[in-house]
Amino acid sequence: MLLNRIVFFAYLASQTLLSFEMSILIKNILLDQQILDIYIEGNSIKKIGKNITNAADKIIDGKNKAAIPGMVNGHTHAAMTLMRGYADDMHLMPWLEQKIWPLESKLTEEDVYWGTKLACLEMIKTGTSLFFDMYHHFPASLKAIEEMGLRAVLTSACFDFDQPQMAEDYKQTVIKQMKLMQGHSNRIQYALGPHAIYTVSTDLIKWVNDFSKDNGLRIQTHLSETQSEVDNSIQKYGKRPAEYLDSIGFLTSNVSLAHCIHLSDDDIKRLADNGCQVIHNPASNMKLASGNKFRFSDLKNAGVPICIGTDGTASGNNLDMFEAMKLASLNGKVAWEDPTIWNANETFEAATEIAETLTGFKTGKIKEGYLADISLVNLNVPEMVPNFNLISNLVYSANGNVVDTLICDGKLLMENRKVEEEETILFNANKTAYNVVSRLKEA
Amino acid sequence: MLLNRIVFFAYLASQTLLSFEMSILIKNILLDQQILDIYIEGNSIKKIGKNITNAADKIIDGKNKAAIPGMVNGHTHAAMTLMRGYADDMHLMPWLEQKIWPLESKLTEEDVYWGTKLACLEMIKTGTSLFFDMYHHFPASLKAIEEMGLRAVLTSACFDFDQPQMAEDYKQTVIKQMKLMQGHSNRIQYALGPHAIYTVSTDLIKWVNDFSKDNGLRIQTHLSETQSEVDNSIQKYGKRPAEYLDSIGFLTSNVSLAHCIHLSDDDIKRLADNGCQVIHNPASNMKLASGNKFRFSDLKNAGVPICIGTDGTASGNNLDMFEAMKLASLNGKVAWEDPTIWNANETFEAATEIAETLTGFKTGKIKEGYLADISLVNLNVPEMVPNFNLISNLVYSANGNVVDTLICDGKLLMENRKVEEEETILFNANKTAYNVVSRLKEA
Repeated sequence: MLLNRIVFFAYLASQTLLSFEMSILIKNILLDQQILDIYIEGNSIKKIGKNITNAADKIIDGKNKAAIPGMVNGHTHAAMTLMRGYADDMHLMPWLEQKIWPLESKLTEEDVYWGTKLACLEMIKTGTSLFFDMYHHFPASLKAIEEMGLRAVLTSACFDFDQPQMAEDYKQTVIKQMKLMQGHSNRIQYALGPHAIYTVSTDLIKWVNDFSKDNGLRIQTHLSETQSEVDNSIQKYGKRPAEYLDSIGFLTSNVSLAHCIHLSDDDIKRLADNGCQVIHNPASNMKLASGNKFRFSDLKNAGVPICIGTDGTASGNNLDMFEAMKLASLNGKVAWEDPTIWNANETFEAATEIAETLTGFKTGKIKEGYLADISLVNLNVPEMVPNFNLISNLVYSANGNVVDTLICDGKLLMENRKVEEEETILFNANKTAYNVVSRLKEA
Repeated sequence: MLLNRIVFFAYLASQTLLSFEMSILIKNILLDQQILDIYIEGNSIKKIGKNITNAADKIIDGKNKAAIPGMVNGHTHAAMTLMRGYADDMHLMPWLEQKIWPLESKLTEEDVYWGTKLACLEMIKTGTSLFFDMYHHFPASLKAIEEMGLRAVLTSACFDFDQPQMAEDYKQTVIKQMKLMQGHSNRIQYALGPHAIYTVSTDLIKWVNDFSKDNGLRIQTHLSETQSEVDNSIQKYGKRPAEYLDSIGFLTSNVSLAHCIHLSDDDIKRLADNGCQVIHNPASNMKLASGNKFRFSDLKNAGVPICIGTDGTASGNNLDMFEAMKLASLNGKVAWEDPTIWNANETFEAATEIAETLTGFKTGKIKEGYLADISLVNLNVPEMVPNFNLISNLVYSANGNVVDTLICDGKLLMENRKVEEEETILFNANKTAYNVVSRLKEA
């Protein structure tokens, strides 16, 4: 264990060292409809222009490629990759109660480690450099994300089901987790993840709220995912979910809310007035039939920042943000009978530029001074030809496989679609998933 | 021109010869939840079993791969790849009248040739071996598809806008096209494609109907794509579109109908009673906001065969049938508020097994005696791990990039994701698309 720790800190130190030393020069790449060079030093974009001549440790030829910001996946449960395809085509409650929760109860820290590694691998291979995670066994996720090199807001999932002892345990856990974050890279931000108003007591939500304010932590929670959540809230609290959270002072600009499929005008006003962000998860909401009327235009007009997420792969099945963009846009257009909404540019922004507002990381744009989180997209594939409109092709035609190279925090995590350790991760994650199911069957 | 013809027939002869001589043995591949060998001779599947020892010209190692039928794309306009990303986020009529139709008016036979080549390349790279095409400049499409090696039902698009001369021209064109089909491979089937009831006169529809019966040709047309099409039909004919077509004896089991978003109970009964097939095009219907209530369950219960299509890339943006499956299923679930419909297996069947009913080609299944139209899917990628349920992973997680190898008509069209001529096609199609736009601007 001690040896593990020493090796791990040595690894961290080497990573930190590398991140300051490494420089990358990307030559002649399509960026903002021009052919430009991008010079990266340490973890940020130092210079963008024509004919940059700075010496660099690594030179990348940008021919037939475009540079775009790494995507932000606004909401996922990374380790649920282990449950991909385990249960589909079911109604929400039997799906949760008969399939997902029993399996989750068998997950160990080691399982979550491999599930998160698989998720990170999938995100790297589909051009996502930043994600908002919410899951159990925090130390395992932390280790996996640290090793994989991605940027993340890592929320510690929280449930107490109105049981005071569970609430107390969570509070102690948070203190421990905060300590565990010390010494970790700046790529990973700790946050709190009270699951939802129907799984977390009012007392614990208030504690999370106070603790996050005292410690400057972000919060993410699920809100108004289904109509029955709204109905139950009205029955229990006499208030809709957003009104209830607002009444206990929970809604602030540090809070992002996943789903928000069933919002009233009053709900939208509360989210806007308090500066909350909203994450739309089209694959999950569609597959579980939670609802298709995500109020994109009303939220946008009210000034609520909108991001896109994949949700966990147990419901959305993959972590490909390109697919999530297309689903968000197409589902929005048809649900509201208006092909002009969720246009290509605003859809792309909800998967890239929104990153800074949602996470505080200075990323989501390719600009001097921003963090070097960049995807290089292969333009020489059928789905990107012709290239009349790069953003249209990315949103409506491409999938994550068009990403050839991913740079996160100034480091090359994938080049020519090759990721270190890929075979090992696939092998171990697959084995782990089957082991979890075996344990459940034996129990 | 004569030289061209000689070269072309020499090419055809060589292809025909090859197709009879070539044999392929796929060893140890995942098929129907077993590890099996598949032996292909000429253009069909000769043997499936364990430890097949037949000598073969080509042996493929199936390790970490699964064999699935090549997909059938039930409805597309292949050459519209040239318009990918040219106009998005618009209402249907201004999109057609201001953007698509003016550009189409500038297309030459050479343009359609390169557009169709690009479409075929994209289909090969995403595991589609058979498609129903409907477009102008038939000889160009024929040449392109013949060269690319795909299987197709090639319908000759037909419009007359109630102008007798246009109708007469079309009839003459059909005679010529029938002659052009002589000497072409059995992979390509000629069919008729009256565009829609609002662009083709009753007289011409009747002629198409008679001609197809006399010559044993299939027909594909657009039906009930938008509510306004239905409203206009009622206004013009006093009948809904399906009732109108039924009243003139048009609906038979040789007829497949694209879209069918706006169907009444009576419409469904007419399609079922006459044995028509229906092709659902979720990307296009969603993006153009044509409607999301495709009546999957009602059509299925009535016994109407259902297929999935991508429509042209001007509206659907890509030709990836894996994506089309996910869109069909997810949109269906959420639109009807039922996560159990369009389950993974029935969605997969609507993209594979349906092929035989829709086209008459003995394909869509991997069985002895069936045509050798087979995709080999790479299981060693994040989106296919874990592999609890192959069909779920294919429908809900994968995209067309999981296809590693495509065999059509017993020939290898792609191996390890490499397709012959790929660079040339991408270069020429891209150049062609820009040339068309230039011509439009000059006009």
